[in-house]
Amino acid sequence: MSDLEALRTQLREFTAARDWDQFHSPKNLAMALAAESGELLEVFQWLTEEQSARLEDKPRAAAADEIADVLLYLIRLADTLGIDPLVEARRKLADNERKYPVDKARGTAKKYTEL
Amino acid sequence: MSDLEALRTQLREFTAARDWDQFHSPKNLAMALAAESGELLEVFQWLTEEQSARLEDKPRAAAADEIADVLLYLIRLADTLGIDPLVEARRKLADNERKYPVDKARGTAKKYTEL
Amino acid sequence: MSDLEALRTQLREFTAARDWDQFHSPKNLAMALAAESGELLEVFQWLTEEQSARLEDKPRAAAADEIADVLLYLIRLADTLGIDPLVEARRKLADNERKYPVDKARGTAKKYTEL
Amino acid sequence: MSDLEALRTQLREFTAARDWDQFHSPKNLAMALAAESGELLEVFQWLTEEQSARLEDKPRAAAADEIADVLLYLIRLADTLGIDPLVEARRKLADNERKYPVDKARGTAKKYTEL
Repeated sequence: MSDLEALRTQLREFTAARDWDQFHSPKNLAMALAAESGELLEVFQWLTEEQSARLEDKPRAAAADEIADVLLYLIRLADTLGIDPLVEARRKLADNERKYPVDKARGTAKKYTEL
Repeated sequence: MSDLEALRTQLREFTAARDWDQFHSPKNLAMALAAESGELLEVFQWLTEEQSARLEDKPRAAAADEIADVLLYLIRLADTLGIDPLVEARRKLADNERKYPVDKARGTAKKYTEL
Repeated sequence: MSDLEALRTQLREFTAARDWDQFHSPKNLAMALAAESGELLEVFQWLTEEQSARLEDKPRAAAADEIADVLLYLIRLADTLGIDPLVEARRKLADNERKYPVDKARGTAKKYTEL
Repeated sequence: MSDLEALRTQLREFTAARDWDQFHSPKNLAMALAAESGELLEVFQWLTEEQSARLEDKPRAAAADEIADVLLYLIRLADTLGIDPLVEARRKLADNERKYPVDKARGTAKKYTEL
């Protein structure tokens, strides 16, 4: 069993024990995940990029906390949809390797910023 | 090596090969993660909770895609911060087990909605 | 002077008096706006759609607060970009009236959910 | 009638004509607003703060578009909740003037980043 599968199982038990499955529709879990990613933004919003790369203890602990929350909701959301997040992430990364060939993508964020 | 560590290594290589480390400040990666979680919201925003639990093929593929993007940026963000997302998620889940004891939390989302 | 212009002026003075212009790059303001919209999600994430339409006092006050925050950051962001949000909103609404003709759009969220 | 009230009325008519009130629960509108604020992040995520302050035409037009979308959903959300966004924004700004007195807040984003 992979690490994410172990967490998935623990989260199922956590949710069932509290009778919280009624709240855990994919719609609601997507909202919770986005709300946590908003809290992650708060850690970084007034910092320069340089400051964000060398966080002090307090914002660093806050970032660790929000990263945990995002991951937990992501695992839970994927579980309610019957989606394996690792399989999808591997597929997507392989897609991106084809989509952004090294020789064309080198050093430019163009394809992103061109919108 | 765990599954997330393998992806972390692949993402490091992907980024370095394209000289994209210059774009991958924690601040920017937190933004990218939040933007992807916004795309996840789009999949669900006009669906009822019931509909969100039985997605048709097209929105389901879209959800899988956005879940992959969120996970990839999460791994990358944690890596640039030197944070282990699995360690943090396990710690946070243990915290939540204490914070929401089964007998008090059963069937109520109060502690959430009380804000 | 419109209501939004009056708030824009007040916000300029508020920011200048605190020497906060250094933090108010469009990038940072877009992050702050998104973080506030995440807090808005938290108000609604565990409620049913029906419950969201008849909020109790506490979540209602929280929603009012977050709506205020989003609007203030939106005005400030638009100001730093030299964009008039009212002009853009009117243009976009006119675009949408053409894009979703009444006879085709009636009662369906298809164009949204088709992604 | 204020500018926002005029847009509120137009949006009511736009929604009613398409029979879209059924989709416009506050919960769904909060999701749509957050999704649009995620698209706003995409415009800025790979730009430096300096670049974000002098956008080229294409990202600038994209920013204007997303600002419009956020404002339209904000007006619509506030309307379904019976909340006046201008009243709330004025109140919140007055709160902030008290909360961040000029002499203490000058030049520091501490109170934000202290979390």
